[in-house]
Amino acid sequence: MLTLYSFGPGANSLKPLLTLYEKGLAFEHRRLEPAKFEHHSHWFKAINPRGQVPALDDGGRIVTESTVICEYLEDAHPTALSLRPDDPWERAEMRVWTKWVDEYFCWCVSTVGWHRHIGNMVKHLSDAEFEEKLKAIPIPEQQVKWRRAREGFPQDILDEEMRKIGVSVRRLDERLADREWLAGGAYSLADICNFAIANGMEKGFPELVNESDTPHLLRWIQRINDRPAAKAMFAQVPRERFEPARAG
Amino acid sequence: MLTLYSFGPGANSLKPLLTLYEKGLAFEHRRLEPAKFEHHSHWFKAINPRGQVPALDDGGRIVTESTVICEYLEDAHPTALSLRPDDPWERAEMRVWTKWVDEYFCWCVSTVGWHRHIGNMVKHLSDAEFEEKLKAIPIPEQQVKWRRAREGFPQDILDEEMRKIGVSVRRLDERLADREWLAGGAYSLADICNFAIANGMEKGFPELVNESDTPHLLRWIQRINDRPAAKAMFAQVPRERFEPARAG
Repeated sequence: MLTLYSFGPGANSLKPLLTLYEKGLAFEHRRLEPAKFEHHSHWFKAINPRGQVPALDDGGRIVTESTVICEYLEDAHPTALSLRPDDPWERAEMRVWTKWVDEYFCWCVSTVGWHRHIGNMVKHLSDAEFEEKLKAIPIPEQQVKWRRAREGFPQDILDEEMRKIGVSVRRLDERLADREWLAGGAYSLADICNFAIANGMEKGFPELVNESDTPHLLRWIQRINDRPAAKAMFAQVPRERFEPARAG
Repeated sequence: MLTLYSFGPGANSLKPLLTLYEKGLAFEHRRLEPAKFEHHSHWFKAINPRGQVPALDDGGRIVTESTVICEYLEDAHPTALSLRPDDPWERAEMRVWTKWVDEYFCWCVSTVGWHRHIGNMVKHLSDAEFEEKLKAIPIPEQQVKWRRAREGFPQDILDEEMRKIGVSVRRLDERLADREWLAGGAYSLADICNFAIANGMEKGFPELVNESDTPHLLRWIQRINDRPAAKAMFAQVPRERFEPARAG
């Protein structure tokens, strides 16, 4: 029995969600509410002591880290649709792209996203209430991020992250100029993991992601949204209310 | 035919080097000199446009990123000794540990290492010569790192990195308190990738890595150094001259 603990279909939570939908695996979905700090609650930290989603429970064994969960699903639950290339070199290429998301692309987009949306989520709390929430967060760096989100990130950090976002979307656009998918010859975890971050950027970052600057990236985003698995996921799993609907 | 382009047996270069030695695979070793900026030279950027080692050439196909190379060697060149657990859950556990090296442990140790050792490597250059060297570096963040290494990193950054190094070594020590290896029941890429960073820390960071604070970590480091593959690698591949010999 598979149980996925995650937020809605965006960012890191989207990676295993879409992988499960693509593979057609039966799973129970336990959707946590970030605005209620459910991922920092005692019951969830008993599942993942780091207080982070997504986490997968496979018959009592817990797998954490979104990219690791995706590869785990391929290892433990192979299906007719494989989301990893068979060729070892193409598989390595896929891993270079999923690793790049985790080490670069995800972080710059995340910081700006936190600045725009997460801050609002905690502004209604008193200082004392906010400090109580922080105490429940096991990772010190995450405490710093919540604090900065509430205060507003310093402008020099935001400027640098916007520069990196520009680098990222141009890199994806160039890569996709003459190919349909990011790694190997087929749709793979490289696409799913990058899509998790890139989807919706034409709304959140229209100055960087638009028809004239990143046409290939836009077409690839649409190509994934058009897949039956993505349509089913977005129809069935509600998004977070604070997700970007427009540039902020 | 396998050719590995790398620095000496330390940090990210050690990961594929030790993996190749452990697996007993025949390979040609092209050792680059960081002090000569060989990884930013035209000939090497024709192999890896990002100007980073290690890189593996397998019959003309290039694989980059140290952790990806290690998994590639398992995928493309399976041997009697497997460095990945067969069980999918244990394999996921292994990947959580290799990922943690790439996203956390490697970076804090690297910054302090750059501050202590890389700065000296470029201090003899004139400003104009140094700027010329920078121009050859394809990754902007690497340019910033070289600049900071030459100027000396700001103290608040160094303090924060030292805090993270403390977190890292205590985490490893706790993990190894009741187990011989980091993931699954056997020696794996989780051990190799963490050893790549941890080896020698009792000399470079004696205030953090020592017999009373991290006894389990020290025994695990020794256990890996005692392996025939590690002995052969250190005997055959010279280390960089600027590698830490004492606390700096």
